[in-house]
Amino acid sequence: MSNPPKQAAALIAVDWGTSSLRGYLLDAVGTTLDSRATAQGILHVATGTFSETLAALTSSWHSREEPLPVLLSGMVGSKQGWREAPYLDTPASVAGLARNLLQVDGQRIWIVPGVKQSAVTAAELTHDVMRGEETQIVGAQQDGIFVLPGTHSKWVVVERGGIVRFRTFMTGEVFAALRAHTILARLMQGDLHDAPAFAHGIRRSKTEPGLLANLFSARTAGLFNQIAPEALSSYLSGLLIGAEFAEAMREFGGFAAVKQPLILNGSAHLVERYGEVAAVFAMPTVAASEDSAARGAFLIAQAAGIVAPPV
Amino acid sequence: MSNPPKQAAALIAVDWGTSSLRGYLLDAVGTTLDSRATAQGILHVATGTFSETLAALTSSWHSREEPLPVLLSGMVGSKQGWREAPYLDTPASVAGLARNLLQVDGQRIWIVPGVKQSAVTAAELTHDVMRGEETQIVGAQQDGIFVLPGTHSKWVVVERGGIVRFRTFMTGEVFAALRAHTILARLMQGDLHDAPAFAHGIRRSKTEPGLLANLFSARTAGLFNQIAPEALSSYLSGLLIGAEFAEAMREFGGFAAVKQPLILNGSAHLVERYGEVAAVFAMPTVAASEDSAARGAFLIAQAAGIVAPPV
Repeated sequence: MSNPPKQAAALIAVDWGTSSLRGYLLDAVGTTLDSRATAQGILHVATGTFSETLAALTSSWHSREEPLPVLLSGMVGSKQGWREAPYLDTPASVAGLARNLLQVDGQRIWIVPGVKQSAVTAAELTHDVMRGEETQIVGAQQDGIFVLPGTHSKWVVVERGGIVRFRTFMTGEVFAALRAHTILARLMQGDLHDAPAFAHGIRRSKTEPGLLANLFSARTAGLFNQIAPEALSSYLSGLLIGAEFAEAMREFGGFAAVKQPLILNGSAHLVERYGEVAAVFAMPTVAASEDSAARGAFLIAQAAGIVAPPV
Repeated sequence: MSNPPKQAAALIAVDWGTSSLRGYLLDAVGTTLDSRATAQGILHVATGTFSETLAALTSSWHSREEPLPVLLSGMVGSKQGWREAPYLDTPASVAGLARNLLQVDGQRIWIVPGVKQSAVTAAELTHDVMRGEETQIVGAQQDGIFVLPGTHSKWVVVERGGIVRFRTFMTGEVFAALRAHTILARLMQGDLHDAPAFAHGIRRSKTEPGLLANLFSARTAGLFNQIAPEALSSYLSGLLIGAEFAEAMREFGGFAAVKQPLILNGSAHLVERYGEVAAVFAMPTVAASEDSAARGAFLIAQAAGIVAPPV
């Protein structure tokens, strides 16, 4: 059991994704008093045990007299999560998210809705979705183009605090599948970052479009010893993130032309990599603060009246 | 033991790839007298047992007095195969392939070299390679743009019977890795061909470039029930082969502009699929004959003097 915090706790914010669970204890102005993380992402929670899992993470934070309000964000609100929180359509603002919280079983527990974009692309209706990123973006409190790298990397245009449009790229998951389950795996040794090979892959995707052909270049570069086995997975990573940037620049090129820095929001490791790619594409970047999920949950809770509004 | 053939046998041609082994008994004008296939591709042959595996396939075809010459093509000539047959550089003609056969241990067994293309792409030297396709192309006896679909799909420009340039796309292997090892797998049921979903995927890749984003559309189309679980793998297949065509058309567009039909050379199943994709791209197609590997081996053996030249 942790020591009781000195300031009065006001909210518990929980970022509950596919593969991890992160809880934050916040005071009345949103300062983090304590935090905990486990690997109990929704894929590792047995059916019907979401309530118990949350209690195990947070019980020592609650007082006996009055339990703290809890705000959950991320895949916990998906069909595979605890309760399905219907998506909010773009444009999505803090106020809109706050109005559409899903309360769980009449308890003081709410789930932030994900955001859905519906657009006519190539003469057909297509959708894109996010869950969890909307809360991080609210917490970053900036306008601009956000890049949230990961399994399903997202580029998000934020104007006046609202999410106006976005696009998801399957970059991280494609990397993992190709790294482990194709002939490339046999040529590769380890996954240490090799900066020259990574830059090599980025340049290739930037100057020579065509991902399916470029992927085969990872095989021939290995076959002819142009890239060492230890560096080949970095080359593949550069090819893929480079392809993501090439695709995104086509889509968000109009925004990029104004040279506002891309706002990188993710783990320190990925933010560093994406920064290297952005440099090759001559795009300036800034990093969002690391605790933007907790901050975002606090601001949404404020807008919903779950914690007191700012004075 | 098979019955002895009526015409005199002159050559055994063996197409020995990664996952399959196909033998053909040919007469003095290249007609197929008998054929056999097993799943003993080079990945399923224990180290040091290539000779025994070949003998098991072909022993009943040889006469006791004078063994037939044997011509092998495909991955059997790779580093992972029986003997490594050095690549022949483009442009590669029948005569060049015939001059560069690798004889195995002084026996009447030869391996057809693969073909390597070296080119400066995006200011760096890059290579592309084939093993086995060169023999199929020789056997097809046509000029034009060949498309050889498969795990590593190849587009090959053939002029005056010679391979002048080509490009490999990792289409088939990317499909298999994504189909089995990403979140898409959880949305999909079965792999029956669904023509509308397949066409849908092709059109998406044709009109909306950006493979990493389009792949995520397979997830959202499943999530919002726009494509049924049974049809979703056909949509993914259409996206990927459509992306291959979009990439290849950029590279081979000058050739495509003359509207010579693409020559599709592969299994009946894949030739049908690729024909559907070509139709969406408004490209006419013809199918190469199915036994082009055996025919190609015969023509190379003739050019090498292993079988008698045509009268």
